[in-house]
Amino acid sequence: MISKREFLKLHENIKPHIHHTPVLSSHLLNEIAGTEIFFKCENLQRGGAFKIRGATAAILNLDAEARKKGVVTHSSGNFAQAVSLAAKSLGIPAYIVMPSSAPEVKKAAVKSYGGQITICPPSLEDREAAAEKIVNETGATFLHPSNQLDVIYGQGTSAMELLEELPDLEVIITPVGGGGLLAGTAFAVNYFGKNCTCIGAEPFEVDDAYRSLKSGKIETNKSTNTIADGLKTQLGDQNFPIIQQYVSEIIRVEEAEIISAMRLIWERMKIIVEPSSAVALAAVLREKEKFRGKKTGIIISGGNVDLDHLPF
Amino acid sequence: MISKREFLKLHENIKPHIHHTPVLSSHLLNEIAGTEIFFKCENLQRGGAFKIRGATAAILNLDAEARKKGVVTHSSGNFAQAVSLAAKSLGIPAYIVMPSSAPEVKKAAVKSYGGQITICPPSLEDREAAAEKIVNETGATFLHPSNQLDVIYGQGTSAMELLEELPDLEVIITPVGGGGLLAGTAFAVNYFGKNCTCIGAEPFEVDDAYRSLKSGKIETNKSTNTIADGLKTQLGDQNFPIIQQYVSEIIRVEEAEIISAMRLIWERMKIIVEPSSAVALAAVLREKEKFRGKKTGIIISGGNVDLDHLPF
Repeated sequence: MISKREFLKLHENIKPHIHHTPVLSSHLLNEIAGTEIFFKCENLQRGGAFKIRGATAAILNLDAEARKKGVVTHSSGNFAQAVSLAAKSLGIPAYIVMPSSAPEVKKAAVKSYGGQITICPPSLEDREAAAEKIVNETGATFLHPSNQLDVIYGQGTSAMELLEELPDLEVIITPVGGGGLLAGTAFAVNYFGKNCTCIGAEPFEVDDAYRSLKSGKIETNKSTNTIADGLKTQLGDQNFPIIQQYVSEIIRVEEAEIISAMRLIWERMKIIVEPSSAVALAAVLREKEKFRGKKTGIIISGGNVDLDHLPF
Repeated sequence: MISKREFLKLHENIKPHIHHTPVLSSHLLNEIAGTEIFFKCENLQRGGAFKIRGATAAILNLDAEARKKGVVTHSSGNFAQAVSLAAKSLGIPAYIVMPSSAPEVKKAAVKSYGGQITICPPSLEDREAAAEKIVNETGATFLHPSNQLDVIYGQGTSAMELLEELPDLEVIITPVGGGGLLAGTAFAVNYFGKNCTCIGAEPFEVDDAYRSLKSGKIETNKSTNTIADGLKTQLGDQNFPIIQQYVSEIIRVEEAEIISAMRLIWERMKIIVEPSSAVALAAVLREKEKFRGKKTGIIISGGNVDLDHLPF
């Protein structure tokens, strides 16, 4: 674990490469929720999601030799864009393994950021094999989207900025998928919060994190029928212990609650958020009594949606 | 005309009642536009549009006696919401005349802000008559959405904040409908800009402001077939002289360019803007050479759209 001072240093280092995202709030949403909510808008981050924080932190952690050889990841989503963008910012090559099933728009985004795409069959095994092949051929370093400590710390800088701006927040809530954002946030809350708790939010349909906290071991999902496509993955051995130690609970929400919270954010806040991001607000609205009168921070994780396929 | 000092005082006075809206930018949009663009996000303003600035300024200009009696306006759109919200903030009654044709969602918004709605037939004469009747009955003060000096100055505070943050902007561009935002912005640019010009943007379909600047008198539109529903109105005798004096030109854009710019903002900036707001970016993209290398500010006027009826 890094010290508070090292954490501050990491933040200083990634700052030139990321946006300092705004914190927004809405009187009307506060009335609906019965509490004061502050949205840290990572959907307005470079690449449209928090992921560039962790990707940049991980690349900056490489020595000059390793940087020259570049970085590899496999991802169909926001992390592919984030790694491409961070690598471009830092002038190093990025090799992105994408499943053949990835939407064209995501492939185009990675390309526009300068990422070198390798297409592979959609199974996790195929993706891992393709990434490993690139590592062997190029000497590039593999970056994991959520289960790697420097990535986790990087993701935590969003909550850190939020607490810098609003030091008296009493609770911060984030969605949980692979666990990188939640673990990083919990870690930051531990260092920078004052009597602030950290809560995760997840769809009932993929409640592996909820079950993992109950059972004490990393659980998986049998099916992934959720609209929150960023939250289908499971926790990892690096982030799970942090989540166990610093996260007070996971709140689960229904699919209809996610869609309704997403629409509420679009209509009231005038910002575009992806379904995964709406999961946190859905949790606050589902358990109003728990949050009543508590100054609440929500990390809006991302805004990458396909406008041609909206759920409302 | 108010002095620079009075303008600063007006801004101080309305500040507690409005959001200080963020300024956002996008590397990718800059690449597409071939210049640096800074978006002043009034879509993230209270009520979802810049209009609350002017409404608040006008109400604060009333004496205690007049305030007690309240304010009246007729509007089917953002100004109705703004007046209701500003009046609520300042604890006075707001009487809103709305045409029977106004969408239910807009009526609901006005009601939720505490505005007292009177429904009338949709013609301008009927709306004016209904508003006058309320003035006579209640002694409330009529507020005009765009052709009243204190309203115009209030709208100009957005550009003033933008120039406070980015004093070296070389051009600021806003959409022009009734002319309140454009006149207020031009007035602020004159006081707070350094070699900064002010440009208006409007659809070809309702190019009355363009023609008015050419002919030297207020022109009207024969038809209003534009998706930019906030820009269908014409200039007024209070704002036209300001626009004549301080606006360097009006750029006109096609409907398809508006829709395409709107989608670009949604996809790249992750914010929800209404078609009228996209007109300014459409103008920059249409006349790239004019803006190349010029640090450009765009006032995003509002974000009130019906998610069930998107143009894409």
